[in-house]
Amino acid sequence: MKRILLSGLFILWLSSAIKAEDGYRLWLRYDRIDNPILLKQYRHALTTIDFPATSPILITAKKELLTGLQGLLGETPRPTQTNNTLIVRLQSPDELPRLGPEGFIIRTLTRAGKKTILITAATDKGVLYGVFHFLRLLQTQQPIDHLAITSIPSLPYRILDHWDNLNRRIERGYAGLSLWDWFTLPIYKDQRYTDYARANASIGINGTVLNNVNASPYILTPDYLEKTAALADVFRPYGIRVYLSVRFSSPIDIGGLKTADPLDPAVRQWWRNKTEEIYRRIPDFGGFLVKANSEGQPGPQNYGRTHADGANMLAEALEPHNGIVIWRAFVYSNETPEDRARQAYTEFKPLDGRFHQNVLVQVKNGPIDFQPREPFHPLFGAMPATPLLLEVQLTQEYLGFSNHLVYLAPLFEECLDSDTHQPSPSTDASGHNAVPPSRPPRPSDATPVSATIRGMAGVANIGNDRNWCGHIFAQANWYAFGRLAWETGGANTPYSAAIATEWIRQTFSNHPSVVDSIRQIMMESREIAVDYMTPLGLHHIMAYEHHYGPGPWLANAARADWNPVYYHKADTAGIGFDRTITGSNALEQYAPGARTQWLDSNSCPDKWLLWWHHVSWNHTMHTGRTLWAELCHKYYAGVDSVRWIQRCWTGLRQHIDPERWQQVNMRLAIQEANAVEWRNACLLYFQTFSRQPLPEGAEPPDHSLEYYQQHKIYYAPGTNQ
Amino acid sequence: MKRILLSGLFILWLSSAIKAEDGYRLWLRYDRIDNPILLKQYRHALTTIDFPATSPILITAKKELLTGLQGLLGETPRPTQTNNTLIVRLQSPDELPRLGPEGFIIRTLTRAGKKTILITAATDKGVLYGVFHFLRLLQTQQPIDHLAITSIPSLPYRILDHWDNLNRRIERGYAGLSLWDWFTLPIYKDQRYTDYARANASIGINGTVLNNVNASPYILTPDYLEKTAALADVFRPYGIRVYLSVRFSSPIDIGGLKTADPLDPAVRQWWRNKTEEIYRRIPDFGGFLVKANSEGQPGPQNYGRTHADGANMLAEALEPHNGIVIWRAFVYSNETPEDRARQAYTEFKPLDGRFHQNVLVQVKNGPIDFQPREPFHPLFGAMPATPLLLEVQLTQEYLGFSNHLVYLAPLFEECLDSDTHQPSPSTDASGHNAVPPSRPPRPSDATPVSATIRGMAGVANIGNDRNWCGHIFAQANWYAFGRLAWETGGANTPYSAAIATEWIRQTFSNHPSVVDSIRQIMMESREIAVDYMTPLGLHHIMAYEHHYGPGPWLANAARADWNPVYYHKADTAGIGFDRTITGSNALEQYAPGARTQWLDSNSCPDKWLLWWHHVSWNHTMHTGRTLWAELCHKYYAGVDSVRWIQRCWTGLRQHIDPERWQQVNMRLAIQEANAVEWRNACLLYFQTFSRQPLPEGAEPPDHSLEYYQQHKIYYAPGTNQ
Repeated sequence: MKRILLSGLFILWLSSAIKAEDGYRLWLRYDRIDNPILLKQYRHALTTIDFPATSPILITAKKELLTGLQGLLGETPRPTQTNNTLIVRLQSPDELPRLGPEGFIIRTLTRAGKKTILITAATDKGVLYGVFHFLRLLQTQQPIDHLAITSIPSLPYRILDHWDNLNRRIERGYAGLSLWDWFTLPIYKDQRYTDYARANASIGINGTVLNNVNASPYILTPDYLEKTAALADVFRPYGIRVYLSVRFSSPIDIGGLKTADPLDPAVRQWWRNKTEEIYRRIPDFGGFLVKANSEGQPGPQNYGRTHADGANMLAEALEPHNGIVIWRAFVYSNETPEDRARQAYTEFKPLDGRFHQNVLVQVKNGPIDFQPREPFHPLFGAMPATPLLLEVQLTQEYLGFSNHLVYLAPLFEECLDSDTHQPSPSTDASGHNAVPPSRPPRPSDATPVSATIRGMAGVANIGNDRNWCGHIFAQANWYAFGRLAWETGGANTPYSAAIATEWIRQTFSNHPSVVDSIRQIMMESREIAVDYMTPLGLHHIMAYEHHYGPGPWLANAARADWNPVYYHKADTAGIGFDRTITGSNALEQYAPGARTQWLDSNSCPDKWLLWWHHVSWNHTMHTGRTLWAELCHKYYAGVDSVRWIQRCWTGLRQHIDPERWQQVNMRLAIQEANAVEWRNACLLYFQTFSRQPLPEGAEPPDHSLEYYQQHKIYYAPGTNQ
Repeated sequence: MKRILLSGLFILWLSSAIKAEDGYRLWLRYDRIDNPILLKQYRHALTTIDFPATSPILITAKKELLTGLQGLLGETPRPTQTNNTLIVRLQSPDELPRLGPEGFIIRTLTRAGKKTILITAATDKGVLYGVFHFLRLLQTQQPIDHLAITSIPSLPYRILDHWDNLNRRIERGYAGLSLWDWFTLPIYKDQRYTDYARANASIGINGTVLNNVNASPYILTPDYLEKTAALADVFRPYGIRVYLSVRFSSPIDIGGLKTADPLDPAVRQWWRNKTEEIYRRIPDFGGFLVKANSEGQPGPQNYGRTHADGANMLAEALEPHNGIVIWRAFVYSNETPEDRARQAYTEFKPLDGRFHQNVLVQVKNGPIDFQPREPFHPLFGAMPATPLLLEVQLTQEYLGFSNHLVYLAPLFEECLDSDTHQPSPSTDASGHNAVPPSRPPRPSDATPVSATIRGMAGVANIGNDRNWCGHIFAQANWYAFGRLAWETGGANTPYSAAIATEWIRQTFSNHPSVVDSIRQIMMESREIAVDYMTPLGLHHIMAYEHHYGPGPWLANAARADWNPVYYHKADTAGIGFDRTITGSNALEQYAPGARTQWLDSNSCPDKWLLWWHHVSWNHTMHTGRTLWAELCHKYYAGVDSVRWIQRCWTGLRQHIDPERWQQVNMRLAIQEANAVEWRNACLLYFQTFSRQPLPEGAEPPDHSLEYYQQHKIYYAPGTNQ
């Protein structure tokens, strides 16, 4: 009996082992459609195919389409044109003027009794995006009988920023080494480079910055440019342009010059020559990303020049080649006289109108640094003459990195949908920020952040871990970034829920209860993380070196604004950062209409309260609780909600392949332990100021404050240790 | 027409894409037997199975067997015992006294007309090894009608040494990050930990040292011991014990003591306590590996004590738990001007007999440092009262690392088979080195290195690259290490060729011409690498920082014996290191019988010449050429032979899946470019001394000596950059 039981288990194990999924396939799994009726319908509708592929990108698209159909349908349509035909066609831009360089149309047509599905676009890139979209429809099991889709990206720049160092360490990367094996390039081209490009193309990402903004100058040496060109060759058939982060002092570091002054003729000539050298190797090179005069990086201010002087020098070198400069607004002074939340605006707002046409200023979603929750950055809408890129971080530096299930699309959407209360940039004289005709109509005449930008940059969460992102659910953040950048919002609200649904259906299952359950987890997850880390507007209270785990007590960093105590300002009277007129007045950087919501500590929504106000521990919150009680409530609710996710996930066990189920389950166990540490450490610490008890009946902390303060983590990933 | 052609190509592409192999499966692919007659025979012979599995290791073995048979046969034998049955049985040690704790028997039996294959052993580990061996027979398509196999390992210790740092960087590792994701342990147990253990068990490896010999003291903190225990739990069902490298100063570093003096009672107590703490978590913990007083590591000599004092202190702590100390003999003094090749012998030989019973001294194959060719280390056979481990390096630090196809088994075998001309240790009083009864008979009464050791340690070439080792062919070195350690030599000579055959059949194909062609490449490959890097006994002439590429001109390292010029001693008179009585006399450390072969520069084999002698550029070699002509000949032959490998590989294209074929092909292109650089740089440099021309008609160097001298490589992998 025992032996028979064992054998039964083995057979179960064997069948599961064969289907083992390690997460490598991302959302592009193309497994056979598991609904037999739908499969029959799809096979019928896609009996034949007609797809002349004449360019590298079209050949990519055709290869993808045939791979996808072979997987999903278990057969490939015959290459003829009779009835029930899938026609894929490049048409002339004259015929499809509205589509622009990247849009596409998918339509079901019936002519003379013959049914046809047409995927068409005015460019081969448009066709590629249309093909991926069509495969997405099949993967998510949508009806294809009456398709009438026109899709045009909201933003022309949809870029991944890799914070990858040339030694393959990734700054704040938690999924292994950089994909780029610089040492074996240009000869060895890993299959993964192609798979990376393919995944990006499938969600509309059209650019990639290969290296860290804290850039090594060696990236511009001939050896590395040859390696970069090899990667560009792999990415080109997927419609992806390569960009590089450059170090402003490169003319000194590798050029043998004595200065990097942007007004020095020799420096300007050096950059012109270097840029020409790049374009000789990479004709469609995208441009430079620059972090200058920020956190120790060199920049034009070293020579008494402005950010505009520095950016414009590079812009002039790139202009003949249609390249762009992306100049980061994440700057704060080395001396810090001012609330860090104010500094980017203070430095950049006066420069509006002084940048060349091909300079884009890249602004983080919030004014501090990728915290679990920040208000939108005051520069959005405040630089009407300057095209802006919205920089978001996929890598969860402050959100539990690859160990926590946190779906970031609601965070991104919260920013994109924030009303800047600034004039709409479409009416601006420069024309830079003209809302593209493709943008979906907005319900009101508000000017959301999404209407003030020309693109999105996502700090990539990709490494050489087999499942790309460490956490299977971190893949959803990569996916959602691409999808949101393509369509920054619109009819489906919240759009992030619609994207989650798409991702779940492609990644896990089309089973309605599975989709519903996972979507609920995902949509709650970011708020849960806020609750157990930084509720009620708290921010920047993490450990110093690794940004992992709590450190609200830290007070001895080299500069004040690297310290958590600088940000929460807890004392016996209360807690919070007064950024109103009685404090740093960072509030004044926003348009009056935007200020109103945060101005008064009594009407300010609870979730923003401690960002803007220092309030008493007994302040009455909108829930009726005191601040201290609400803080406790939030931290405890955060932990309880992680446990709720664990229970949901346990309930999904029979619907998910065992390897990925187990992967996620183990990560959830880490998340739960971390959430408990955040809660206990923060509440025990803040309790030393509030001097009030924890709620009656609450799970008591299992360690003392001293234990948490002394808990040392060695060799945390993502740091330079 | 064009479209049809394209579609045809796509279908070809699709079918190959489905079969894409990324190398993850190593030699355990278990694909369906492609010979239909043999498949039928196997299925018939394995109609039913009887395998009671009652312990974790037996359950592992059964799982593996069923997985393997399901893959190879496409069906699993029925779990009954009728006819044509595979019986797997644990028997009592009394019944199988000869087998020892790890041996196994596989026999075909016919009783009362019923045919049976029996896999049996006296321990569950023996059964596990027997199962893997049986699956190997099927994978290599051997007949199974008349099996009569008894297999007992030659050496009890078969250990992988990981030079993995706790931050996941691997010292001299070229296949990505360390497999051990310390940060997410102990909760997150990556599937790869299991797959790693399984691969090791399949080739008889029974121990693993998890961390670098340049050890972080934090490995012994409670957090890391908990993580280590989690790994040990994964490895235990595969018969693998965990060892740790420890830093000799740990009592100071993490213990709060003021000294690490091995004779200090508090220090001794600290190690006893720490060891007990380890065994509470890991009852089968293997022991400690120590690099002491070598290359800056702390050790007993810091306190005026000997290596024996240090090792014995740890041995006493481990003894009650049946743990061992592995003490490395790779030492060279910070001060002594003595030829580095002499130093380990000078320090360790006098200590013979002074180590505790559970101390093993680990000696590298040669007296310098894993060079492409070195004579065997003089300590082998010279310490009859001390059990030795032979340390070899799989990671190709000096052999082109993961970019070069170099099959190392011939190198290992060259060492194992070297005759020490010392008394056979089996007669020694200590009994330590008694030749196990299992060792295959040797043809003569020589005492080869293999007869002087108790185990082998291989510095692991494994990282988190998808194919484990970076280069598909580097997997063969992992494989061969395990197989050689199990059976250090025997009837098949050269044994490394037999191992290559096994590996090829399991990894690529059983097709005879494929096997022959790849085996020929592999068996030639090490000699080829010697030719284009360090022919004729040259050694240690590589670049300084990264050990990648040539650097024979380097002369300004912090100490003389880190400089290539120290080792080749080229001048206008000639080249080579005189280690005879007129020079460093390292020769005197060998037994007289061994010395003879190298003593005279005229009779010394060419391949050892410049290791032992400084000879004139016009010295007449055994080929009749002058030394200079021979040196040129070797370097040119090395490059030509790499090109020969490339041609062979091109010829194999249709027999290998496209992804692995392409992987290897790109690596070969890198190897060819590197070989050319080695040849040109070395010959141009040595030519400045020989003042003789390159051979007439030889491919001229494509760069000047200055170019090679200035060729700077940034961020080479495997270093700490």
